[in-house]
Amino acid sequence: MSGTTVLTVAYDGAPFSGFARQEGTPTVQALLEGALATVLRREVAIVGAGRTDAGVHALGQVVSFASREGDAPAAKLARSLGALCAPAIVVREVREAREGFSARFDAVSREYRYRIVCGATPPVFVGRVAWHVARDLDAGAMREAAAALVGEHDFRSFCVTSSAAGRDTVRRMLALEVTEDEPLGERCLVVGAVGNAFLHSMVRVIVGSLVEVGRGARSADWLANALQARDRAAAGPTAPAHGLTLWRVEYPPDAFTDAAAEGI
Amino acid sequence: MSGTTVLTVAYDGAPFSGFARQEGTPTVQALLEGALATVLRREVAIVGAGRTDAGVHALGQVVSFASREGDAPAAKLARSLGALCAPAIVVREVREAREGFSARFDAVSREYRYRIVCGATPPVFVGRVAWHVARDLDAGAMREAAAALVGEHDFRSFCVTSSAAGRDTVRRMLALEVTEDEPLGERCLVVGAVGNAFLHSMVRVIVGSLVEVGRGARSADWLANALQARDRAAAGPTAPAHGLTLWRVEYPPDAFTDAAAEGI
Repeated sequence: MSGTTVLTVAYDGAPFSGFARQEGTPTVQALLEGALATVLRREVAIVGAGRTDAGVHALGQVVSFASREGDAPAAKLARSLGALCAPAIVVREVREAREGFSARFDAVSREYRYRIVCGATPPVFVGRVAWHVARDLDAGAMREAAAALVGEHDFRSFCVTSSAAGRDTVRRMLALEVTEDEPLGERCLVVGAVGNAFLHSMVRVIVGSLVEVGRGARSADWLANALQARDRAAAGPTAPAHGLTLWRVEYPPDAFTDAAAEGI
Repeated sequence: MSGTTVLTVAYDGAPFSGFARQEGTPTVQALLEGALATVLRREVAIVGAGRTDAGVHALGQVVSFASREGDAPAAKLARSLGALCAPAIVVREVREAREGFSARFDAVSREYRYRIVCGATPPVFVGRVAWHVARDLDAGAMREAAAALVGEHDFRSFCVTSSAAGRDTVRRMLALEVTEDEPLGERCLVVGAVGNAFLHSMVRVIVGSLVEVGRGARSADWLANALQARDRAAAGPTAPAHGLTLWRVEYPPDAFTDAAAEGI
Protein backbone atom coordinates (compact mmCIF):
# COMPACT_ATOMS: atom_id res chain seq x y z
CA MET A 1 0.00 0.00 0.00
CA SER A 2 1.44 3.40 -0.82
CA GLY A 3 0.78 6.05 1.78
CA THR A 4 2.70 7.50 4.70
CA THR A 5 4.05 5.75 7.77
CA VAL A 6 4.01 7.84 10.95
CA LEU A 7 6.15 7.03 13.99
CA THR A 8 5.86 8.49 17.47
CA VAL A 9 9.27 8.32 19.15
CA ALA A 10 10.80 9.32 22.48
CA TYR A 11 14.43 10.04 23.28
CA ASP A 12 16.75 11.52 25.86
CA GLY A 13 18.43 14.40 24.02
CA ALA A 14 21.79 14.23 25.79
CA PRO A 15 23.60 11.85 23.40
CA PHE A 16 22.35 13.62 20.26
CA SER A 17 23.47 16.75 18.42
CA GLY A 18 19.77 17.44 17.92
CA PHE A 19 17.12 16.00 15.63
CA ALA A 20 18.24 17.20 12.21
CA ARG A 21 20.91 15.32 10.29
CA GLN A 22 24.37 16.91 10.38
CA GLU A 23 27.41 15.29 8.83
CA GLY A 24 29.71 13.66 11.37
CA THR A 25 27.59 13.95 14.52
CA PRO A 26 24.98 11.63 16.04
CA THR A 27 21.46 12.90 15.36
CA VAL A 28 18.01 11.46 15.88
CA GLN A 29 17.28 11.69 12.16
CA ALA A 30 20.47 9.83 11.19
CA LEU A 31 19.83 7.00 13.67
CA LEU A 32 16.19 6.60 12.61
CA GLU A 33 16.92 6.78 8.87
CA GLY A 34 19.76 4.28 9.26
CA ALA A 35 17.52 1.85 11.14
CA LEU A 36 14.69 2.29 8.63
CA ALA A 37 17.06 1.57 5.75
CA THR A 38 18.13 -1.65 7.47
CA VAL A 39 14.56 -2.78 8.15
CA LEU A 40 13.00 -1.70 4.83
CA ARG A 41 16.08 -2.37 2.63
CA ARG A 42 15.88 1.00 0.87
CA GLU A 43 16.88 4.63 1.44
CA VAL A 44 14.29 6.40 3.60
CA ALA A 45 14.01 10.17 4.19
CA ILE A 46 12.02 11.16 7.27
CA VAL A 47 10.35 14.44 8.21
CA GLY A 48 10.06 15.39 11.89
CA ALA A 49 7.33 17.48 13.53
CA GLY A 50 9.87 19.35 15.67
CA ARG A 51 13.54 19.95 14.90
CA THR A 52 14.68 19.60 18.51
CA ASP A 53 18.05 21.21 19.30
CA ALA A 54 21.07 19.42 20.75
CA GLY A 55 20.22 18.19 24.24
CA VAL A 56 16.46 18.69 23.93
CA HIS A 57 14.38 15.60 24.79
CA ALA A 58 11.23 14.21 23.21
CA LEU A 59 8.40 12.18 24.70
CA GLY A 60 6.15 12.48 21.62
CA GLN A 61 8.22 13.46 18.58
CA VAL A 62 6.41 12.46 15.39
CA VAL A 63 8.18 11.56 12.14
CA SER A 64 6.79 10.48 8.79
CA PHE A 65 8.06 8.87 5.59
CA ALA A 66 6.52 7.63 2.35
CA SER A 67 5.63 3.97 2.64
CA ARG A 68 5.74 1.46 -0.22
CA GLU A 69 3.88 -1.67 -1.11
CA GLY A 70 5.60 -4.57 0.61
CA ASP A 71 6.80 -2.60 3.66
CA ALA A 72 6.59 -4.55 6.92
CA PRO A 73 3.25 -4.13 8.72
CA ALA A 74 3.12 -1.58 11.54
CA ALA A 75 3.53 -3.94 14.52
CA LYS A 76 6.48 -5.74 12.93
CA LEU A 77 8.10 -2.46 11.86
CA ALA A 78 7.74 -1.12 15.41
CA ARG A 79 9.45 -4.16 16.90
CA SER A 80 12.34 -4.23 14.39
CA LEU A 81 12.97 -0.49 14.60
CA GLY A 82 12.66 -0.54 18.38
CA ALA A 83 15.33 -3.22 18.60
CA LEU A 84 17.70 -1.31 16.27
CA CYS A 85 17.26 2.08 17.95
CA ALA A 86 17.30 0.94 21.61
CA PRO A 87 18.06 2.31 24.07
CA ALA A 88 18.67 5.79 22.57
CA ILE A 89 15.31 6.07 20.81
CA VAL A 90 12.10 4.36 21.87
CA VAL A 91 9.44 3.76 19.20
CA ARG A 92 6.12 4.31 20.97
CA GLU A 93 3.65 4.02 18.12
CA VAL A 94 3.45 3.29 14.38
CA ARG A 95 0.47 4.55 12.36
CA GLU A 96 -0.56 4.91 8.73
CA ALA A 97 -1.68 8.14 7.03
CA ARG A 98 -2.68 9.12 3.49
CA GLU A 99 -0.11 9.62 0.74
CA GLY A 100 1.51 13.06 1.05
CA PHE A 101 0.92 13.41 4.80
CA SER A 102 3.74 15.30 6.54
CA ALA A 103 4.49 15.05 10.27
CA ARG A 104 5.75 18.64 9.98
CA PHE A 105 3.25 20.42 7.75
CA ASP A 106 0.10 18.61 8.84
CA ALA A 107 0.71 19.21 12.56
CA VAL A 108 -2.03 21.36 14.10
CA SER A 109 -0.12 22.13 17.28
CA ARG A 110 2.98 21.25 19.23
CA GLU A 111 3.33 21.09 22.99
CA TYR A 112 6.64 21.59 24.74
CA ARG A 113 7.23 21.28 28.48
CA TYR A 114 10.12 22.93 30.26
CA ARG A 115 10.97 21.70 33.76
CA ILE A 116 12.69 23.77 36.46
CA VAL A 117 13.78 22.60 39.92
CA CYS A 118 14.15 25.71 42.05
CA GLY A 119 15.70 26.25 45.47
CA ALA A 120 19.07 25.37 46.98
CA THR A 121 18.60 21.57 46.93
CA PRO A 122 19.60 20.11 43.55
CA PRO A 123 17.52 17.29 42.05
CA VAL A 124 18.73 13.69 42.20
CA PHE A 125 16.32 11.85 39.90
CA VAL A 126 15.05 14.48 37.46
CA GLY A 127 18.34 16.34 36.94
CA ARG A 128 18.76 15.04 33.38
CA VAL A 129 15.48 16.61 32.30
CA ALA A 130 15.17 19.69 34.52
CA TRP A 131 17.08 22.95 34.89
CA HIS A 132 18.20 23.56 38.47
CA VAL A 133 17.80 27.25 39.38
CA ALA A 134 19.36 27.57 42.83
CA ARG A 135 16.86 30.07 44.23
CA ASP A 136 13.16 30.36 44.87
CA LEU A 137 11.00 31.54 41.99
CA ASP A 138 7.66 33.35 42.20
CA ALA A 139 5.40 31.14 40.09
CA GLY A 140 2.53 33.63 40.37
CA ALA A 141 4.59 36.42 38.81
CA MET A 142 5.73 34.04 36.06
CA ARG A 143 2.09 33.11 35.34
CA GLU A 144 1.09 36.75 35.12
CA ALA A 145 3.94 37.51 32.72
CA ALA A 146 3.27 34.44 30.59
CA ALA A 147 -0.32 35.54 29.90
CA ALA A 148 0.95 38.39 27.69
CA LEU A 149 2.46 35.92 25.21
CA VAL A 150 -0.72 33.96 24.51
CA GLY A 151 -2.28 34.67 21.13
CA GLU A 152 -0.91 35.44 17.66
CA HIS A 153 2.23 37.57 17.92
CA ASP A 154 5.49 38.34 16.19
CA PHE A 155 7.88 36.36 18.45
CA ARG A 156 11.05 37.80 16.88
CA SER A 157 12.34 38.82 20.35
CA PHE A 158 12.25 35.18 21.45
CA CYS A 159 14.30 33.41 18.81
CA VAL A 160 17.88 32.98 17.70
CA THR A 161 18.61 36.15 15.72
CA SER A 162 20.33 34.44 12.79
CA SER A 163 17.34 32.17 12.21
CA ALA A 164 14.88 35.10 12.09
CA ALA A 165 16.49 37.19 9.35
CA GLY A 166 14.06 37.66 6.48
CA ARG A 167 11.67 35.03 7.87
CA ASP A 168 8.08 35.21 9.02
CA THR A 169 8.30 35.19 12.83
CA VAL A 170 4.59 35.34 13.60
CA ARG A 171 3.35 32.32 15.56
CA ARG A 172 0.18 31.52 17.48
CA MET A 173 0.67 30.61 21.15
CA LEU A 174 -2.40 28.63 22.19
CA ALA A 175 -1.44 28.21 25.84
CA LEU A 176 1.52 29.15 28.06
CA GLU A 177 1.06 27.81 31.56
CA VAL A 178 3.22 27.60 34.66
CA THR A 179 2.21 24.64 36.82
CA GLU A 180 3.73 22.49 39.56
CA ASP A 181 4.52 18.81 39.43
CA GLU A 182 6.43 16.37 41.66
CA PRO A 183 7.82 13.56 39.46
CA LEU A 184 9.78 10.94 41.42
CA GLY A 185 9.27 13.00 44.57
CA GLU A 186 11.11 16.10 43.32
CA ARG A 187 9.14 19.33 43.04
CA CYS A 188 9.32 21.06 39.65
CA LEU A 189 7.88 24.15 38.03
CA VAL A 190 6.66 23.19 34.58
CA VAL A 191 6.30 25.75 31.79
CA GLY A 192 3.92 24.19 29.27
CA ALA A 193 3.78 25.87 25.86
CA VAL A 194 1.27 24.90 23.17
CA GLY A 195 1.50 26.65 19.82
CA ASN A 196 0.81 26.13 16.15
CA ALA A 197 4.60 26.17 15.62
CA PHE A 198 7.70 27.51 17.33
CA LEU A 199 10.74 29.49 16.22
CA HIS A 200 14.30 28.30 16.84
CA SER A 201 14.95 28.22 20.64
CA MET A 202 11.68 30.09 21.23
CA VAL A 203 10.56 28.08 24.26
CA ARG A 204 14.00 28.31 25.83
CA VAL A 205 14.18 32.10 25.43
CA ILE A 206 10.65 32.43 26.85
CA VAL A 207 11.60 30.25 29.84
CA GLY A 208 14.85 32.17 30.40
CA SER A 209 12.81 35.38 30.39
CA LEU A 210 10.14 33.97 32.72
CA VAL A 211 12.87 33.01 35.20
CA GLU A 212 14.07 36.64 35.19
CA VAL A 213 10.54 37.56 36.26
CA GLY A 214 10.30 34.68 38.75
CA ARG A 215 13.47 35.70 40.56
CA GLY A 216 12.30 39.28 40.80
CA ALA A 217 14.89 40.80 38.46
CA ARG A 218 12.16 41.91 36.02
CA SER A 219 8.49 42.78 36.26
CA ALA A 220 5.66 40.98 34.48
CA ASP A 221 5.23 44.10 32.29
CA TRP A 222 8.78 43.79 31.10
CA LEU A 223 7.95 40.57 29.25
CA ALA A 224 5.03 42.23 27.40
CA ASN A 225 7.38 45.05 26.42
CA ALA A 226 10.02 42.57 25.27
CA LEU A 227 7.45 41.00 22.95
CA GLN A 228 6.61 44.43 21.46
CA ALA A 229 10.29 45.23 20.88
CA ARG A 230 10.75 42.50 18.22
CA ASP A 231 14.40 42.41 19.19
CA ARG A 232 16.22 39.43 20.73
CA ALA A 233 18.19 41.82 22.96
CA ALA A 234 14.97 42.89 24.70
CA ALA A 235 14.26 39.38 26.07
CA GLY A 236 16.07 37.32 28.73
CA PRO A 237 18.76 34.65 28.41
CA THR A 238 18.19 31.28 26.69
CA ALA A 239 17.41 28.55 29.24
CA PRO A 240 19.56 25.39 28.94
CA ALA A 241 18.47 22.71 26.48
CA HIS A 242 18.24 19.79 28.92
CA GLY A 243 15.13 21.17 30.69
CA LEU A 244 13.07 21.06 27.49
CA THR A 245 10.97 18.17 26.17
CA LEU A 246 8.87 18.02 22.99
CA TRP A 247 5.82 16.57 24.73
CA ARG A 248 3.13 16.02 22.12
CA VAL A 249 2.13 16.87 18.55
CA GLU A 250 -1.51 17.12 17.48
CA TYR A 251 -2.93 16.27 14.03
CA PRO A 252 -6.43 16.60 12.57
CA PRO A 253 -8.65 13.74 13.79
CA ASP A 254 -8.97 12.31 10.27
CA ALA A 255 -5.24 12.39 9.52
CA PHE A 256 -4.70 8.68 10.09
CA THR A 257 -6.03 5.93 7.86
CA ASP A 258 -5.50 2.98 10.22
CA ALA A 259 -8.22 2.01 12.67
CA ALA A 260 -6.18 2.43 15.83
CA ALA A 261 -2.66 3.11 16.97
CA GLU A 262 -0.33 0.14 16.85
CA GLY A 263 2.09 0.13 19.78
CA ILE A 264 5.01 -2.23 19.91
CA MET B 1 25.63 21.82 72.32
CA SER B 2 25.80 18.04 72.70
CA GLY B 3 22.94 16.18 71.10
CA THR B 4 22.37 14.43 67.79
CA THR B 5 22.53 15.84 64.29
CA VAL B 6 20.08 14.31 61.84
CA LEU B 7 20.48 14.54 58.06
CA THR B 8 17.93 13.71 55.40
CA VAL B 9 19.75 12.72 52.22
CA ALA B 10 18.84 11.58 48.69
CA TYR B 11 20.94 9.59 46.26
CA ASP B 12 20.83 7.61 43.04
CA GLY B 13 21.92 4.11 44.09
CA ALA B 14 23.68 3.16 40.85
CA PRO B 15 27.21 4.36 41.70
CA PHE B 16 27.17 2.88 45.22
CA SER B 17 27.72 -0.62 46.57
CA GLY B 18 24.88 0.13 48.96
CA PHE B 19 24.57 2.22 52.09
CA ALA B 20 26.70 0.31 54.60
CA ARG B 21 30.46 0.79 54.66
CA GLN B 22 32.45 -2.02 53.01
CA GLU B 23 36.19 -1.90 52.60
CA GLY B 24 37.32 -1.03 49.07
CA THR B 25 33.97 -0.11 47.49
CA PRO B 26 32.10 3.19 47.27
CA THR B 27 29.24 3.34 49.77
CA VAL B 28 26.89 6.08 50.92
CA GLN B 29 28.13 5.73 54.49
CA ALA B 30 31.80 6.07 53.50
CA LEU B 31 31.16 9.18 51.38
CA LEU B 32 29.06 10.86 54.08
CA GLU B 33 31.45 9.99 56.93
CA GLY B 34 34.40 11.20 54.87
CA ALA B 35 32.68 14.51 54.12
CA LEU B 36 31.61 14.94 57.76
CA ALA B 37 35.18 14.34 58.94
CA THR B 38 36.38 17.06 56.55
CA VAL B 39 33.74 19.57 57.67
CA LEU B 40 33.81 18.83 61.43
CA ARG B 41 37.54 17.98 61.65
CA ARG B 42 36.98 14.78 63.64
CA GLU B 43 36.03 11.14 63.04
CA VAL B 44 32.26 10.77 62.72
CA ALA B 45 30.27 7.50 62.80
CA ILE B 46 26.79 7.72 61.29
CA VAL B 47 23.75 5.48 61.71
CA GLY B 48 21.28 5.14 58.81
CA ALA B 49 17.54 4.48 59.04
CA GLY B 50 17.67 2.01 56.14
CA ARG B 51 20.64 -0.06 54.99
CA THR B 52 19.81 0.22 51.29
CA ASP B 53 21.37 -2.48 49.08
CA ALA B 54 23.65 -1.86 46.10
CA GLY B 55 21.70 -0.01 43.41
CA VAL B 56 18.78 0.97 45.65
CA HIS B 57 17.96 4.70 45.63
CA ALA B 58 16.88 7.03 48.42
CA LEU B 59 14.76 10.15 48.36
CA GLY B 60 14.47 10.42 52.15
CA GLN B 61 17.22 8.38 53.81
CA VAL B 62 17.85 9.63 57.36
CA VAL B 63 21.22 9.40 59.13
CA SER B 64 22.27 10.56 62.57
CA PHE B 65 25.50 11.18 64.48
CA ALA B 66 26.45 12.55 67.88
CA SER B 67 27.05 16.28 67.67
CA ARG B 68 29.56 18.19 69.76
CA GLU B 69 29.80 21.68 71.13
CA GLY B 70 31.40 23.87 68.46
CA ASP B 71 29.99 21.94 65.45
CA ALA B 72 28.94 24.16 62.56
CA PRO B 73 25.30 25.31 62.76
CA ALA B 74 22.76 23.34 60.70
CA ALA B 75 22.49 25.67 57.69
CA LYS B 76 26.27 25.96 57.34
CA LEU B 77 26.77 22.21 57.81
CA ALA B 78 24.15 21.53 55.11
CA ARG B 79 25.93 23.81 52.62
CA SER B 80 29.43 22.47 53.30
CA LEU B 81 28.34 18.82 53.22
CA GLY B 82 26.21 19.41 50.13
CA ALA B 83 29.20 20.84 48.29
CA LEU B 84 31.45 17.91 49.29
CA CYS B 85 28.93 15.17 48.47
CA ALA B 86 27.55 16.60 45.20
CA PRO B 87 26.36 15.31 42.85
CA ALA B 88 26.22 11.74 44.22
CA ILE B 89 24.43 12.60 47.47
CA VAL B 90 22.10 15.53 48.01
CA VAL B 91 21.64 16.84 51.57
CA ARG B 92 17.98 17.81 51.80
CA GLU B 93 17.65 18.73 55.46
CA VAL B 94 19.68 19.06 58.67
CA ARG B 95 17.94 18.86 62.05
CA GLU B 96 18.84 18.52 65.72
CA ALA B 97 17.58 15.81 68.11
CA ARG B 98 18.23 14.92 71.74
CA GLU B 99 21.40 13.13 72.84
CA GLY B 100 21.14 9.40 72.16
CA PHE B 101 18.65 9.73 69.29
CA SER B 102 19.19 7.09 66.59
CA ALA B 103 17.96 7.44 62.99
CA ARG B 104 17.67 3.65 63.00
CA PHE B 105 16.19 2.74 66.37
CA ASP B 106 13.93 5.76 66.84
CA ALA B 107 12.27 5.37 63.43
CA VAL B 108 8.55 4.66 63.74
CA SER B 109 8.09 3.57 60.14
CA ARG B 110 9.83 3.37 56.79
CA GLU B 111 8.25 3.81 53.39
CA TYR B 112 9.70 2.24 50.26
CA ARG B 113 8.37 2.72 46.73
CA TYR B 114 9.05 0.29 43.92
CA ARG B 115 8.39 1.47 40.37
CA ILE B 116 7.54 -0.79 37.42
CA VAL B 117 7.07 0.23 33.78
CA CYS B 118 5.06 -2.51 32.12
CA GLY B 119 4.30 -3.23 28.47
CA ALA B 120 6.46 -3.57 25.38
CA THR B 121 7.60 0.07 25.23
CA PRO B 122 10.66 0.65 27.43
CA PRO B 123 10.93 3.87 29.46
CA VAL B 124 13.18 6.70 28.31
CA PHE B 125 13.23 9.06 31.29
CA VAL B 126 12.47 6.87 34.32
CA GLY B 127 14.53 3.84 33.31
CA ARG B 128 17.17 4.46 36.00
CA VAL B 129 14.59 4.19 38.76
CA ALA B 130 12.02 1.75 37.36
CA TRP B 131 12.01 -1.94 36.43
CA HIS B 132 10.82 -2.52 32.88
CA VAL B 133 8.61 -5.64 32.72
CA ALA B 134 7.92 -6.17 29.01
CA ARG B 135 4.30 -7.31 29.37
CA ASP B 136 1.04 -6.06 30.75
CA LEU B 137 0.38 -6.61 34.44
CA ASP B 138 -2.99 -6.92 36.16
CA ALA B 139 -2.79 -4.24 38.86
CA GLY B 140 -6.11 -5.36 40.35
CA ALA B 141 -4.84 -8.89 40.96
CA MET B 142 -1.63 -7.48 42.45
CA ARG B 143 -3.69 -5.29 44.81
CA GLU B 144 -5.79 -8.24 45.92
CA ALA B 145 -2.67 -10.33 46.61
CA ALA B 146 -0.90 -7.49 48.43
CA ALA B 147 -3.72 -7.16 50.97
CA ALA B 148 -2.75 -10.52 52.52
CA LEU B 149 0.63 -9.14 53.60
CA VAL B 150 -0.69 -6.18 55.59
CA GLY B 151 -0.44 -6.58 59.36
CA GLU B 152 2.05 -8.23 61.70
CA HIS B 153 3.48 -11.38 60.14
CA ASP B 154 6.57 -13.55 60.03
CA PHE B 155 8.04 -12.42 56.68
CA ARG B 156 10.71 -15.16 56.56
CA SER B 157 9.52 -16.21 53.07
CA PHE B 158 10.34 -12.73 51.76
CA CYS B 159 13.95 -12.21 52.78
CA VAL B 160 17.42 -13.36 51.85
CA THR B 161 17.74 -16.78 53.53
CA SER B 162 21.22 -16.22 54.97
CA SER B 163 20.10 -13.04 56.73
CA ALA B 164 17.12 -14.76 58.41
CA ALA B 165 18.94 -17.61 60.16
CA GLY B 166 18.35 -17.40 63.91
CA ARG B 167 16.82 -13.90 63.62
CA ASP B 168 13.42 -12.53 64.48
CA THR B 169 11.68 -12.18 61.12
CA VAL B 170 8.38 -10.76 62.37
CA ARG B 171 7.61 -7.30 60.98
CA ARG B 172 4.53 -5.10 60.89
CA MET B 173 3.41 -4.04 57.39
CA LEU B 174 1.29 -0.92 57.84
CA ALA B 175 0.34 -0.49 54.18
CA LEU B 176 1.13 -2.26 50.89
CA GLU B 177 -0.49 -0.48 47.97
CA VAL B 178 -0.33 -0.79 44.20
CA THR B 179 -1.04 2.56 42.55
CA GLU B 180 -0.42 4.22 39.19
CA ASP B 181 1.69 7.27 38.49
CA GLU B 182 2.98 9.01 35.34
CA PRO B 183 6.26 10.77 36.19
CA LEU B 184 7.80 12.63 33.23
CA GLY B 185 4.99 11.29 31.03
CA GLU B 186 5.84 7.60 31.50
CA ARG B 187 3.20 5.40 33.11
CA CYS B 188 4.38 3.37 36.11
CA LEU B 189 2.90 0.92 38.57
CA VAL B 190 4.10 1.89 42.04
CA VAL B 191 4.23 -0.62 44.88
CA GLY B 192 4.29 1.44 48.07
CA ALA B 193 5.26 -0.41 51.25
CA VAL B 194 5.09 1.16 54.71
CA GLY B 195 6.27 -0.91 57.65
CA ASN B 196 7.81 -0.58 61.09
CA ALA B 197 10.96 -2.16 59.62
CA PHE B 198 11.94 -4.42 56.72
CA LEU B 199 14.07 -7.55 56.35
CA HIS B 200 16.95 -7.78 53.89
CA SER B 201 15.55 -7.54 50.29
CA MET B 202 12.01 -7.88 51.66
CA VAL B 203 10.40 -5.26 49.42
CA ARG B 204 12.16 -6.64 46.35
CA VAL B 205 11.01 -10.22 47.03
CA ILE B 206 7.45 -8.98 47.64
CA VAL B 207 7.52 -7.04 44.35
CA GLY B 208 8.98 -10.00 42.45
CA SER B 209 6.15 -12.13 43.85
CA LEU B 210 3.47 -9.52 43.06
CA VAL B 211 4.69 -9.42 39.45
CA GLU B 212 4.18 -13.22 39.25
CA VAL B 213 0.57 -12.57 40.24
CA GLY B 214 0.25 -9.57 37.91
CA ARG B 215 1.37 -11.52 34.86
CA GLY B 216 -1.06 -14.32 35.67
CA ALA B 217 1.52 -16.98 36.51
CA ARG B 218 0.24 -17.20 40.10
CA SER B 219 -3.05 -16.51 41.86
CA ALA B 220 -3.60 -13.96 44.62
CA ASP B 221 -4.05 -16.89 47.07
CA TRP B 222 -0.59 -18.15 46.24
CA LEU B 223 0.97 -15.08 47.88
CA ALA B 224 -0.98 -15.65 51.12
CA ASN B 225 0.20 -19.27 51.10
CA ALA B 226 3.78 -18.19 50.45
CA LEU B 227 3.60 -16.00 53.57
CA GLN B 228 2.36 -18.95 55.65
CA ALA B 229 5.15 -21.21 54.38
CA ARG B 230 7.92 -19.19 56.11
CA ASP B 231 10.28 -20.43 53.41
CA ARG B 232 12.07 -18.26 50.84
CA ALA B 233 11.52 -20.96 48.20
CA ALA B 234 7.74 -20.47 48.46
CA ALA B 235 7.89 -16.84 47.26
CA GLY B 236 8.73 -15.36 43.84
CA PRO B 237 12.02 -14.01 42.45
CA THR B 238 13.76 -10.91 43.81
CA ALA B 239 12.93 -7.82 41.74
CA PRO B 240 15.99 -5.82 40.55
CA ALA B 241 17.46 -3.21 42.90
CA HIS B 242 17.18 -0.19 40.60
CA GLY B 243 13.35 -0.03 40.83
CA LEU B 244 13.45 0.53 44.59
CA THR B 245 13.62 3.85 46.46
CA LEU B 246 13.70 4.44 50.24
CA TRP B 247 11.05 7.16 50.15
CA ARG B 248 10.52 8.42 53.68
CA VAL B 249 11.23 7.62 57.32
CA GLU B 250 8.90 8.71 60.10
CA TYR B 251 9.88 9.65 63.67
CA PRO B 252 7.80 10.58 66.74
CA PRO B 253 6.61 14.19 66.49
CA ASP B 254 8.71 15.22 69.53
CA ALA B 255 11.92 13.60 68.27
CA PHE B 256 13.49 16.84 67.08
CA THR B 257 14.67 19.62 69.34
CA ASP B 258 15.04 22.38 66.75
CA ALA B 259 12.10 24.61 65.93
CA ALA B 260 11.88 23.80 62.24
CA ALA B 261 13.73 21.92 59.56
CA GLU B 262 16.75 23.69 58.13
CA GLY B 263 17.10 23.09 54.40
CA ILE B 264 20.20 24.08 52.53
